[in-house]
Amino acid sequence: MILIDGKKYRDELLEEYKKKVEDLSISLAIIQVGNNEASNLYITNKIKYSSQVGINVEYFNLDTEDEKEVEELINQLNENDNITGIILQSPTPNMNYDRLAEMIDSKKDVDGFTKENIYKLYMKEEAIIPCTVKGIIKLLDHYNIPISGSNICIIGRGNIVGKPLALALTNRDATVTLCHSKTKKLKDITKKADIIISAVGKPNMITEDMVKKDFVGIDVGINKVNGKTVGDFDFENIKDKASYITPVPGGVGPMTIAMIIDNLIEMAEKN
Amino acid sequence: MILIDGKKYRDELLEEYKKKVEDLSISLAIIQVGNNEASNLYITNKIKYSSQVGINVEYFNLDTEDEKEVEELINQLNENDNITGIILQSPTPNMNYDRLAEMIDSKKDVDGFTKENIYKLYMKEEAIIPCTVKGIIKLLDHYNIPISGSNICIIGRGNIVGKPLALALTNRDATVTLCHSKTKKLKDITKKADIIISAVGKPNMITEDMVKKDFVGIDVGINKVNGKTVGDFDFENIKDKASYITPVPGGVGPMTIAMIIDNLIEMAEKN
Repeated sequence: MILIDGKKYRDELLEEYKKKVEDLSISLAIIQVGNNEASNLYITNKIKYSSQVGINVEYFNLDTEDEKEVEELINQLNENDNITGIILQSPTPNMNYDRLAEMIDSKKDVDGFTKENIYKLYMKEEAIIPCTVKGIIKLLDHYNIPISGSNICIIGRGNIVGKPLALALTNRDATVTLCHSKTKKLKDITKKADIIISAVGKPNMITEDMVKKDFVGIDVGINKVNGKTVGDFDFENIKDKASYITPVPGGVGPMTIAMIIDNLIEMAEKN
Repeated sequence: MILIDGKKYRDELLEEYKKKVEDLSISLAIIQVGNNEASNLYITNKIKYSSQVGINVEYFNLDTEDEKEVEELINQLNENDNITGIILQSPTPNMNYDRLAEMIDSKKDVDGFTKENIYKLYMKEEAIIPCTVKGIIKLLDHYNIPISGSNICIIGRGNIVGKPLALALTNRDATVTLCHSKTKKLKDITKKADIIISAVGKPNMITEDMVKKDFVGIDVGINKVNGKTVGDFDFENIKDKASYITPVPGGVGPMTIAMIIDNLIEMAEKN
């Protein structure tokens, strides 16, 4: 069993990014509305890693319930040639997040969730790929785990991970089964899968009897159990059946934030 | 084994549509560029069935290689309140079909292929559903074949059938495996499937050893073999293992054209 070390790979990538950013001029705008605790933490990390590689971060914390103010800021940032990418941190209390996020220029859409980028992903055109999806694919590639021709079971059909991941992996010639809460005989499906990717958010969701020998396990779940962070896998009991497996924490998580920077560099290189 | 009779159901639907159209005023604009043989036949059928239920059809056959002319016509039709829906018949010789089709107002996009409608399908919002996809789902519902909780194997990942069908059936709580030319161990997957939907275009692609007893077979393939139209199924040899199965011709095909009318009625009712 080989442990997929997302933290180590992230740090290697950050070193690479630092060199690339030297030759580019990259500014990331982060918009936060209100003062959500979890958002504060996410934003602190986004600022930390972006700054670390030399990206300039402009942070806007709006204490407002007026959507117009957010709209105006997004429009200004869209038109500002000095801004490479924009993140509207979710949630935006008392505002329609989806509508506001959709206003971000697709060329500055670091998260890859705008209509334009999702449609490009669907059409297999060059798109800004959502960060967690891109992070998972980078990890698989880094460990030389074949995607093309693999039978991949994704559990969780959300718009942030499951659905875009299914499209992206199908584009890479994997055969994807997209499972979810209404799936019957989940075990029959996971047991046949070369790669199992769980993005549910339920501890011990994937147990030893559900996986085949030498499967690859990618755990996107983040759950708190007795103050400890765990994923969706019953890790201790399934790890020895795996050929490769991500730990939680330290697997997919660190990659997601690195992919924000990856997307920003991609955007800067295009312009 | 029950034969899924798409022709009979189409005719029933056309009777229903006729009554509905009486209370609405529906105009369909069809744009053809050049004189492709196959297109001529498709258009003849679209005009025939639309007229039959009382829909007014405006047919524009442009003998041009100037994309601007097509653009201008689409813009005019978009702005014309008397036009309910627009079809740009593919192909458009020497022109960028995708770019032109994308210019159609998403509210008049009968085929459901514009960015706006695909994105809505992805987001599980109310969308104009592509006609073949909608036709298959209507057939399953008509024969009371459960979609929610079923394991469905789709073969073919095209933008017209496979991919939008995977999204639509996932939205309906099916567990979908999207297979294609790079899929390994296809038989292992089809043998587990409650419903097999083939949209490949290869005769005898699905054989008796690949299906389980009482499977449901939906054949979207249209192939010519010795002058005879056949689907992707080795129909004679698999039909007795099926609980329900579509013939080719007479299964999915007739539904597709009916769904053009279904989409037009939906559009007219919304406005």
